[in-house]
Amino acid sequence: METIEDFAIDVLGPRTLPSPLGLSNAMGDMVANYTLDEDRVLWDISGRDTTRSFERAGPREFNYFRGPSVRAGIVTCGGLCPGINNIIRGLVLQLWHRYGVRSIAGFRYGYRGLSMRGAASTIELNPDMVDSIHLVGGSLLGSSRGQHDPSEMVDVLVGEGIRILFCVGGDGTMRGARAICAELDRRKLKVSVIGVPKTIDNDIPFIERSFGFETAVDKAAQAIQAAHVEARGAPNGIGLVKLMGRHSGFIAAQATLASGEVNLTLIPEVPFELDGKGGLLRWLSSRLKSRGHAVIVVAEGAGQRHLARRDERDASGNQRLSDIGTFLKRLFRERLQHLDVNVKYIDPSYMIRAAPANPGDSIFCAQLAENAVHAAMAGKTSMVVGIWGSLFTHVPLAAATSGRKLLSVDGPEWRSVLDTTGQPAILGRQPRPPNEQEPNDDEPPGPRCPAC
Amino acid sequence: METIEDFAIDVLGPRTLPSPLGLSNAMGDMVANYTLDEDRVLWDISGRDTTRSFERAGPREFNYFRGPSVRAGIVTCGGLCPGINNIIRGLVLQLWHRYGVRSIAGFRYGYRGLSMRGAASTIELNPDMVDSIHLVGGSLLGSSRGQHDPSEMVDVLVGEGIRILFCVGGDGTMRGARAICAELDRRKLKVSVIGVPKTIDNDIPFIERSFGFETAVDKAAQAIQAAHVEARGAPNGIGLVKLMGRHSGFIAAQATLASGEVNLTLIPEVPFELDGKGGLLRWLSSRLKSRGHAVIVVAEGAGQRHLARRDERDASGNQRLSDIGTFLKRLFRERLQHLDVNVKYIDPSYMIRAAPANPGDSIFCAQLAENAVHAAMAGKTSMVVGIWGSLFTHVPLAAATSGRKLLSVDGPEWRSVLDTTGQPAILGRQPRPPNEQEPNDDEPPGPRCPAC
Amino acid sequence: METIEDFAIDVLGPRTLPSPLGLSNAMGDMVANYTLDEDRVLWDISGRDTTRSFERAGPREFNYFRGPSVRAGIVTCGGLCPGINNIIRGLVLQLWHRYGVRSIAGFRYGYRGLSMRGAASTIELNPDMVDSIHLVGGSLLGSSRGQHDPSEMVDVLVGEGIRILFCVGGDGTMRGARAICAELDRRKLKVSVIGVPKTIDNDIPFIERSFGFETAVDKAAQAIQAAHVEARGAPNGIGLVKLMGRHSGFIAAQATLASGEVNLTLIPEVPFELDGKGGLLRWLSSRLKSRGHAVIVVAEGAGQRHLARRDERDASGNQRLSDIGTFLKRLFRERLQHLDVNVKYIDPSYMIRAAPANPGDSIFCAQLAENAVHAAMAGKTSMVVGIWGSLFTHVPLAAATSGRKLLSVDGPEWRSVLDTTGQPAILGRQPRPPNEQEPNDDEPPGPRCPAC
Amino acid sequence: METIEDFAIDVLGPRTLPSPLGLSNAMGDMVANYTLDEDRVLWDISGRDTTRSFERAGPREFNYFRGPSVRAGIVTCGGLCPGINNIIRGLVLQLWHRYGVRSIAGFRYGYRGLSMRGAASTIELNPDMVDSIHLVGGSLLGSSRGQHDPSEMVDVLVGEGIRILFCVGGDGTMRGARAICAELDRRKLKVSVIGVPKTIDNDIPFIERSFGFETAVDKAAQAIQAAHVEARGAPNGIGLVKLMGRHSGFIAAQATLASGEVNLTLIPEVPFELDGKGGLLRWLSSRLKSRGHAVIVVAEGAGQRHLARRDERDASGNQRLSDIGTFLKRLFRERLQHLDVNVKYIDPSYMIRAAPANPGDSIFCAQLAENAVHAAMAGKTSMVVGIWGSLFTHVPLAAATSGRKLLSVDGPEWRSVLDTTGQPAILGRQPRPPNEQEPNDDEPPGPRCPAC
Repeated sequence: METIEDFAIDVLGPRTLPSPLGLSNAMGDMVANYTLDEDRVLWDISGRDTTRSFERAGPREFNYFRGPSVRAGIVTCGGLCPGINNIIRGLVLQLWHRYGVRSIAGFRYGYRGLSMRGAASTIELNPDMVDSIHLVGGSLLGSSRGQHDPSEMVDVLVGEGIRILFCVGGDGTMRGARAICAELDRRKLKVSVIGVPKTIDNDIPFIERSFGFETAVDKAAQAIQAAHVEARGAPNGIGLVKLMGRHSGFIAAQATLASGEVNLTLIPEVPFELDGKGGLLRWLSSRLKSRGHAVIVVAEGAGQRHLARRDERDASGNQRLSDIGTFLKRLFRERLQHLDVNVKYIDPSYMIRAAPANPGDSIFCAQLAENAVHAAMAGKTSMVVGIWGSLFTHVPLAAATSGRKLLSVDGPEWRSVLDTTGQPAILGRQPRPPNEQEPNDDEPPGPRCPAC
Repeated sequence: METIEDFAIDVLGPRTLPSPLGLSNAMGDMVANYTLDEDRVLWDISGRDTTRSFERAGPREFNYFRGPSVRAGIVTCGGLCPGINNIIRGLVLQLWHRYGVRSIAGFRYGYRGLSMRGAASTIELNPDMVDSIHLVGGSLLGSSRGQHDPSEMVDVLVGEGIRILFCVGGDGTMRGARAICAELDRRKLKVSVIGVPKTIDNDIPFIERSFGFETAVDKAAQAIQAAHVEARGAPNGIGLVKLMGRHSGFIAAQATLASGEVNLTLIPEVPFELDGKGGLLRWLSSRLKSRGHAVIVVAEGAGQRHLARRDERDASGNQRLSDIGTFLKRLFRERLQHLDVNVKYIDPSYMIRAAPANPGDSIFCAQLAENAVHAAMAGKTSMVVGIWGSLFTHVPLAAATSGRKLLSVDGPEWRSVLDTTGQPAILGRQPRPPNEQEPNDDEPPGPRCPAC
Repeated sequence: METIEDFAIDVLGPRTLPSPLGLSNAMGDMVANYTLDEDRVLWDISGRDTTRSFERAGPREFNYFRGPSVRAGIVTCGGLCPGINNIIRGLVLQLWHRYGVRSIAGFRYGYRGLSMRGAASTIELNPDMVDSIHLVGGSLLGSSRGQHDPSEMVDVLVGEGIRILFCVGGDGTMRGARAICAELDRRKLKVSVIGVPKTIDNDIPFIERSFGFETAVDKAAQAIQAAHVEARGAPNGIGLVKLMGRHSGFIAAQATLASGEVNLTLIPEVPFELDGKGGLLRWLSSRLKSRGHAVIVVAEGAGQRHLARRDERDASGNQRLSDIGTFLKRLFRERLQHLDVNVKYIDPSYMIRAAPANPGDSIFCAQLAENAVHAAMAGKTSMVVGIWGSLFTHVPLAAATSGRKLLSVDGPEWRSVLDTTGQPAILGRQPRPPNEQEPNDDEPPGPRCPAC
Repeated sequence: METIEDFAIDVLGPRTLPSPLGLSNAMGDMVANYTLDEDRVLWDISGRDTTRSFERAGPREFNYFRGPSVRAGIVTCGGLCPGINNIIRGLVLQLWHRYGVRSIAGFRYGYRGLSMRGAASTIELNPDMVDSIHLVGGSLLGSSRGQHDPSEMVDVLVGEGIRILFCVGGDGTMRGARAICAELDRRKLKVSVIGVPKTIDNDIPFIERSFGFETAVDKAAQAIQAAHVEARGAPNGIGLVKLMGRHSGFIAAQATLASGEVNLTLIPEVPFELDGKGGLLRWLSSRLKSRGHAVIVVAEGAGQRHLARRDERDASGNQRLSDIGTFLKRLFRERLQHLDVNVKYIDPSYMIRAAPANPGDSIFCAQLAENAVHAAMAGKTSMVVGIWGSLFTHVPLAAATSGRKLLSVDGPEWRSVLDTTGQPAILGRQPRPPNEQEPNDDEPPGPRCPAC
């Protein structure tokens, strides 16, 4: 893990062009204000450590780029997530209407569209094209997983004349964006690279909430509701729902809180035993005997130690996880056969990922996109737009890729989950030793939020 | 298949008790009217055959039972389906408020609750208990699959003093109800047995529409929408959705029409080839080459000939089908590997079955329940309540269990599906010969609707 | 009222062009079949009167028009209704993909767009333009009320070269279509005029269900749910919801059944007294005393006798109704002041009309549009597409404009409403005498459905 | 306005009872931690002023009350708001399951139920009673407006033996709670009074977000969508939506951002002229001429200066506002008659207020309720639970009632609204002078958030 010395944001060069937005620097004149680089958001809002803070996002009074003479590009990578189309639409509307940008390339199917030059791999974007794309889920541009050669991608950027590149994607995408920045630097090219962090798991460090997460929780809660109905509808019914969350249990935890019908939530951060006193099977058996049904939520990254380790990686370089959902389904059917259990297994993954953004995410996406454009026009680069303490921020790519955000087992969110489910804090013998912290991945967790 | 000679409805005995409903027999007096047994609905509403007709459902002027002195029972069997709770609620409210019945037993977990006597297996039902059960899906009483000994079940009915039994369930449940009727007959017991047909597949003969079907189509269309978004979001994306439909493609067909985004719909009634000219794989390969993505809906009973036959049956006696969904998912991944396809497979089964009834089904369930109660109070028995030409009817249990309703491949509904998807009428060589009509089941199809 | 002698459908001339659809006339060949003019649907499906029947809708083996050489037009009139965009989309897709029509004009803002010639008043339609219009409510073409000179409209049709005109609209629109037909006849012009009946009130005679109605009931039930919550949330709370229904209480009745929370439903077909024993105010006062709250649904055409008659008409020629909703709101506040009532009044009109079609209506609209196109291509004219006994039909414009369909107060639907609400059949003295049947309109009710 | 010297929280007395929750004080032991009073959240998270901070909410290691021996009460006041039932449910479940409280009184219909003693005015609450109340909107207990004599209310508390009182309500309710606290103090009674701030307008100072607000924005966005459809469906269509917001434009602003279809948003914080150059009517007229339709959102407290001032107050003491919605509807119809405008006016108020909480609000309500119970058990009093920088806090009643939170016209939220609508910052001559800041109320605005 890199040390996060600071949250300083790179700038391409001196900013001398007055903003076309016509805002104000005075309070009380009923005109909205520009944001200064000196406007900050504390990392530790508990006030114990006031030395580190994020730059606030927002329009700057002076810009580096002039809209009408710049060409921008947008690329969306990785798995689908609610709100990608809202981000694309927001970027295009803001570039076009507020800054006068008239040339916007959409690269097709992720970095793949950046790695080969050709008419087929870009779409020219304008307000008409994006007018109603937010009504459906998915990505207008398509997406794909996988790394590509930074040098080849920079060749395409140069060939296309791109001066501003918006990369919408997750961890791997942000690492790809850093590689592009490094290559641009090497060639001394002044191109702004701005990330919009997309992770349905909400596990990017230094970012409070990622877009699509709230919608994902909504949809996940619906799947849990179905599992609850099925579990209650059959003798010894077990409703089992697998949710996203490769390393972090945020969706599982929030969906549990939203539904209020879960009896056990299993997340990657908390190990559990299957057998023995206090283990999962005894807990479940006892729950069925006393209540006749059970609802269990499992994050996809939970309990990986119980599965045969597969040394495979997907095209994005993520380790392929073994499927804890089908593993538990079979386990319950075999080991609890004597109770004549009825296991109803729901994997709502694609129905969650393909959903259109809910109103809360629609607002959030619109604001992320606005702030990404403000940052780009001001010549900021090698950064992502984020949110902290409910305020929009700039986060260096280095910080945003410095590890995983994990759910704090000591904190109030997990405490609320335990309150809601009534489950024991630990299923089985002992908590795992610290060095097993991340059994399913070789990446370290990100820095701990000081106030969470 | 039994020959359906007639749709005559059995009655327990002379009906001499004036209805407590206070309706009228006159038109134009602004008071709703009683229904006569002579009120009919033609089976063939095209008018070619006017010899056969159903008895219309509705309140009779004279009843066999007196509400305050009768005890009724309700049992719900088989898989969950939207609207079961609406049916339970409707039965209880109608019995209680309109006919003064004050003793209503709910048997727990299907016929299982009828087959063993004991406090644990019944719930006493009243309006307060059912007040808001329709807001969630599932069954308040629980459900289960499986046949039980009719003699034992009649023992329980006698022991509980049940004079009216409402059986909510599918094919197997209705056969169970017939067995109960036969046993009651043998013992010369005057108990009314009224079925409320529940089949999410909508495949009961002589019944136009079964409750929950419309809600199932709503939810299925949402799953198709997700598949469409996923298919378009990836290079050579294939969105594959498996829907209910063991023998009949009604849900697959209607969901296809509702979504308007499907490119191929596979149903049990239409065989298809995988290989060869015009087969599924060539069609799909060609579609991907021309359009870059495809959305395919497959009913669970389709294409069973391509799967290894499993001679297993579930607890309800239904033959276990091999899983055509996972079969196709694997097939596409293996055989179209050269196209680097991205198969996104969605099985929304439980999220459909566990949904609460939509407004249309809520209305339908309320009316089915009302008419079931009217029939029971009038001493009708060995029948189900149905709907035909939009009018509520009485259908003998013998007719309702006389086979499966199939989607007419010659008719307008399937024609609309082909219009919407643009798919070829036949994938592969030749239509199957008539004797392969029902390859996945040994039961015959039901009689063909003369006007459909 | 005109006498409906027959349901014979006009044809423009001999049909000699083989259909491009490639369907079959044989059963059992797994190819969908053409429909014959001899295929019928009985008007009286109770079988008492088998002399009158509708022509069945569907594709004909021989057509009058050849797609590639014909220009079609679409016009949408009157108030908005869920599903108009689905109809437009369905017409365009069917014309284009199945019949090869490549020239389709959309007239803007109703008959207004037909009454003046000019670039601004038409939009050229094609599959791309209508691809996703069904995701939102409203009309892509816009709509307007008001009659226009038939001669001028035929001038525009001639000028535009329109050979097929689809008129989507209500009662006034259908009368306008008849006037256009008469003018075309007078000029001996062979133009097919096909109506798609749009009435959110569901009051067109000889048509079982109109599109958008089911969605309207869904949305209306949501408004009732809000009224119920508000009524229960305040001491002596009265939730009052005004719903559409100028002459007919279909929406009010169905929404009452869907919600199950209504205590009183007032419809145009059933008069009521405000004062006196058994009148509305005493009923309400007594309900509040016993239960503490009440939920009342009133159709906009109900109780017009209590309002000052306004001799005004809107642009469509409909008599302007006085507002029964605000009248009752004030009445309850004033006359029940001593009970300290809290009246919560909801008028969800536009939120209902502007909704997108639900899945059931989406299917229905797609099929209506298909059948409208089949009829037009076959040279049928002066007719609307309808549905009867769940089968699609052709109904002469003369029949469809021959009066209003009313809810039968003697029939099962109203009986179910009374069962659900528990309200008295009559509020106040006496039912109105027959000659007051339609107090708010000078039009007669349409012919009574023999089986309803 | 009171000066907010500090955010110190009152405590009833020494806390000596160990918590029954069994949490930990150590990090890394996989057991959730207690919260210390020393745990803080900075008021100014920009870091400029680090002198003032809120106490963090959460369970304390030592409590003042022992659950099994304490009686708690819950009262819900004011207008309905999504999530009230979730709060009631959350309080009851937390009290019962985590702290062992077995005696919980629900007072009926707001402070009214506290002001008269009697069996009719309380409901005994337990987990069974609240099990599914969150599935519907409204308040299980009912609500009412209006002030009552604190002395009488304390008499009732004493008579009922209440030691902990949860007051769920808005501004007036919190002032009532302060009066109760003062009376308790005067009598030296040790009763904990904990507020849960309910304001659909989101205008309570020192609180980032109030429950139900997010759901309200969802529903408001749906109403705007309907207005947009209606506006586009008619020539010169104007969709006009009135939303809640007596003093603050938060709902109007957020719903505008969520919908993305609004052309003009009017809020109480920004005055506007009707006439003259740059006034509302000229802007609208020009918009209609260029685009043919317009969508306008108006908060109920906007533009009050244009209405005749009514010196009336409702039962809660709030000044009755004149209706800006119907005023604008009439204004547009009269003054823009020459454009033949079609004004479609939507007032979705009750459909918003009566909605059940969405998943985001469900989570938020559950956590507010948990933290309210933790605070009460610890003997905190005269405070509300709040949220700041996404962390839960304790806020003194004095601070929470010290004015109104207003939308900052200089800040990023309003800037995003202007970006989205493209509307001019000011309609008409001049911004109002500072002393007209709050023309419709004599209450001052609350202190300005330093970072917003």
